[in-house]
Amino acid sequence: MTRKVVGILGGMGPEATILLQKRLLQIVDAQDDADHLPLLIDMNPQVPSRIAHLIEGTGPSPAPVLIEMANRLEQAGATALAMPCNTAHHYLPEIVDHLTVPFLDMIALSVARVAQSAETGARIGFLASPAVQIGGVFDKALKQHGLTPAWPEQMDLLLSAIRDIKANGPTDRAAKILSDAASELEGKGAAQLIVACSEFSLTTSSLSASIPVIDTVDVLARAVRDHMIVS
Amino acid sequence: MTRKVVGILGGMGPEATILLQKRLLQIVDAQDDADHLPLLIDMNPQVPSRIAHLIEGTGPSPAPVLIEMANRLEQAGATALAMPCNTAHHYLPEIVDHLTVPFLDMIALSVARVAQSAETGARIGFLASPAVQIGGVFDKALKQHGLTPAWPEQMDLLLSAIRDIKANGPTDRAAKILSDAASELEGKGAAQLIVACSEFSLTTSSLSASIPVIDTVDVLARAVRDHMIVS
Repeated sequence: MTRKVVGILGGMGPEATILLQKRLLQIVDAQDDADHLPLLIDMNPQVPSRIAHLIEGTGPSPAPVLIEMANRLEQAGATALAMPCNTAHHYLPEIVDHLTVPFLDMIALSVARVAQSAETGARIGFLASPAVQIGGVFDKALKQHGLTPAWPEQMDLLLSAIRDIKANGPTDRAAKILSDAASELEGKGAAQLIVACSEFSLTTSSLSASIPVIDTVDVLARAVRDHMIVS
Repeated sequence: MTRKVVGILGGMGPEATILLQKRLLQIVDAQDDADHLPLLIDMNPQVPSRIAHLIEGTGPSPAPVLIEMANRLEQAGATALAMPCNTAHHYLPEIVDHLTVPFLDMIALSVARVAQSAETGARIGFLASPAVQIGGVFDKALKQHGLTPAWPEQMDLLLSAIRDIKANGPTDRAAKILSDAASELEGKGAAQLIVACSEFSLTTSSLSASIPVIDTVDVLARAVRDHMIVS
């Protein structure tokens, strides 16, 4: 039996990659080191900026670097790949063309999870980067499940919160922006919220909402675990 | 110029590997992702137990697995290697025989750091696993600098604290054991303390001592940074 190990395309940002590791530790019932699950992590904060490429149109596509990372992880023995960055999933179709191992698609998995308890036509609110919106990262998966996205009006505020967290870690200011956006989306009739920015995942402990909140990093952590334990 | 990236032999335990990543983030002045430093991490919690091999004499040597991890990281492009586990440094001489890139030796670096401000013959207190003591992990480096180790009497208590942290994360009980051991070592005339177990590094925020306390994980984080930024 081949040992299963998930390769992580990481560093976008480094805090988000650490968060995935921590969430994975939390969902494994371990009494000693050996009970935990192996990972091969390419922590590469130098992946070209997704924000610069998708929003500002000023930088190169990150796709070539992401393909290189994926190939290197596969060569090093990864039996599946994962990427704890929602925005980077915009480039997933280009990446998977170059792979023979499965990619644990955080976007498809998260929408499938939401769809389990959402009616057809339901509005799903997004707490995410404008790059996720502009890049249409969730559009295809939502359409497949007959779901409609709802976005906060002031996406520039969400971007400033992401920049704040990347520079200073989770701040009160960022938590407030996130919380206000959640209230706005509830007011717009969202049936559920998806936290689709791993910087925001760092602050969700302070987020309160009366509708279900799904964190894409949690969905990914479970998929990583299930690749190694269940399958 | 070749891109510098440090390869991490990790997973011993996973929390300690995460801690090194966090400490590295803290000592880099970053405004955005790209300011942070890249790592290649082999998170392998299935490395044979150092405690079973060195203390209990019941398990295989971890050396062959560590050599395999080191070679794989070098092949994947690592320009230096590091290992955030003090006990595993017992096997370092076997590992470096198989490498062409430098290994950032956490033990040698930590003792050199302590020696900067310790007089010849000074006693250095250790908060560590009995495996570190039995394996003589620090002996050579201490001797080179003319320093003498001091150990707590009840090393079995320290081992139980390590097992506690590996199973449950930092606990009050573990913090108390560590704090009592620190007081005992001060009483025995230690000039400085070395926290030489990465599980203990998780609890040092609650440790108070009137003598300098050096954490080996901090020393390693700085060496990792310096490999990529200074050299």
